[in-house]
Amino acid sequence: MSIALTILGCHSATPRAHAHPTAQYLQINNRHFLIDCGEGTQQQLRKYKIGFSKINHIFISHLHGDHFFGLIGLVATLGILNREKTLHIYGPVGIEESIRTQLKLTHTWIQYPLEFHELNSTDSEIIFEDDQVCVKTIPLDHRVYTNGFLFTEKEKNKRLHIENITQYPEIDRSDYHHIKAGKAVTLTCGEVIPNSELTLPTPPLKSYAFCSDTAYKPSIVPLLKNVTLLYHEATFLESHAHLTKKTKHSTAKQAAEIAKLAEVSTLILGHYSSRYPDISEFKKEAQTVFKKVELAQAGAIFSA
Amino acid sequence: MSIALTILGCHSATPRAHAHPTAQYLQINNRHFLIDCGEGTQQQLRKYKIGFSKINHIFISHLHGDHFFGLIGLVATLGILNREKTLHIYGPVGIEESIRTQLKLTHTWIQYPLEFHELNSTDSEIIFEDDQVCVKTIPLDHRVYTNGFLFTEKEKNKRLHIENITQYPEIDRSDYHHIKAGKAVTLTCGEVIPNSELTLPTPPLKSYAFCSDTAYKPSIVPLLKNVTLLYHEATFLESHAHLTKKTKHSTAKQAAEIAKLAEVSTLILGHYSSRYPDISEFKKEAQTVFKKVELAQAGAIFSA
Repeated sequence: MSIALTILGCHSATPRAHAHPTAQYLQINNRHFLIDCGEGTQQQLRKYKIGFSKINHIFISHLHGDHFFGLIGLVATLGILNREKTLHIYGPVGIEESIRTQLKLTHTWIQYPLEFHELNSTDSEIIFEDDQVCVKTIPLDHRVYTNGFLFTEKEKNKRLHIENITQYPEIDRSDYHHIKAGKAVTLTCGEVIPNSELTLPTPPLKSYAFCSDTAYKPSIVPLLKNVTLLYHEATFLESHAHLTKKTKHSTAKQAAEIAKLAEVSTLILGHYSSRYPDISEFKKEAQTVFKKVELAQAGAIFSA
Repeated sequence: MSIALTILGCHSATPRAHAHPTAQYLQINNRHFLIDCGEGTQQQLRKYKIGFSKINHIFISHLHGDHFFGLIGLVATLGILNREKTLHIYGPVGIEESIRTQLKLTHTWIQYPLEFHELNSTDSEIIFEDDQVCVKTIPLDHRVYTNGFLFTEKEKNKRLHIENITQYPEIDRSDYHHIKAGKAVTLTCGEVIPNSELTLPTPPLKSYAFCSDTAYKPSIVPLLKNVTLLYHEATFLESHAHLTKKTKHSTAKQAAEIAKLAEVSTLILGHYSSRYPDISEFKKEAQTVFKKVELAQAGAIFSA
């Protein structure tokens, strides 16, 4: 299992006693990311026993309160918890002013470095990359500047096909490094042994795409092609489709259309409007278009 | 019953799954006030089924996150709920910049008037008064500029002692207005009938004092004299009394000393540090000094 996504909250703005605004905790290849941070996220992290100190990177899709008002509380708490490591925050231009203004006015002193990566591009761009994971923005269509995020496992070293390799006595252990890196081997006789003969097939790279909040935007489909897990907002059912234009949100059916076009493995729905008492209707509606649909709920874990 | 205080949260800063930061809902003489607004307050209001629209006045003691980070979310939600009435917010200088910066950066448009009453006096002052209630600040001693708040019922019209009044046939219904207002009646013969003979004894005026966060500050006792309910923070037990100087908080025993000196009717403790698993210890310690002690807990209602 290389991806585990914990839903901390998945409802839209209007608060209710047991409906939490958007926040997700993503583990991918041993990296730990927080995605969006609605009010109360730090309490949800506690509830699901997720260690605050593991999180070094926080990705904020847009500066609407239900995706963002919990960030200042978390930043302040990390100070109380004596964090020392740098915390990286990725989000729209303005996010730094917002947090630093709060810190100043509330006399909150934090001893750890806080590094903001402000975004303003309307093209997809790589915003984080290490040897394990790559994170790209997914430009969305909402009332304010908004990005989704695509988290992709990095290509791993290939695994050696020892049985095949040993048929070439000339291939030495010192060659293994190159073979693992995907290179072919040229024997002294000039024969080229293709890498595919010397390595085992690699499992496909896994990926997670977070798309909230957005109107139906099929132009993002190429970015989402074949992702393993796609979270796509479904604020409305088709019975309220007329509201999607003004609010720049999607229906469950539209989310499913994106999943179908992108041929993803699994679609996860969320960001339900509070007008619907029974969220199972979202699944039913989406499944008229795309079969493999899951419903986000606080505490649910989706793995791949 | 003229006072009902609902505790929405009463723990200190470090978040836990089921410990909410400071917020209180006070009903006094049909006025509805919110006192402090830690992160998650709007969700607590929903949980305890308190109508958002009743609240027209919010009092913020100080700009530390655990008393304040829920305010922006509530202000934004009131916009979503199509509030039209003015919302009055009382708090330290800086509170307006903090909220307006958030509103601007999160593109949150609110259609209702938001009126800030910024405080900077270190003397007690009346900050709200109508025909039912008077609200005064209680200057506290904390690491940042902090006020407690004293809510007092206004003197009501006296109730007529009809049996006594009818013994003076000369006293007419047209005099009742003056008698209710506390005036004596002079008969045509020149005899003065004192008001006390014509009216029933009035019950003592009820009051609620909120004191959080503060170091032990006996100079506030005259302000608190004989209040009906006193909420006084008790972050620590005496076993950690050495921490009160640096943090400017109080122990349960110190809170009880204030209650005893001020001769209040009931002391309510709260703002417990997360280091104590069993809050009943706070009550035990306070009762060594003052008998009538209650423990604040989320959802508890104290009435008088």
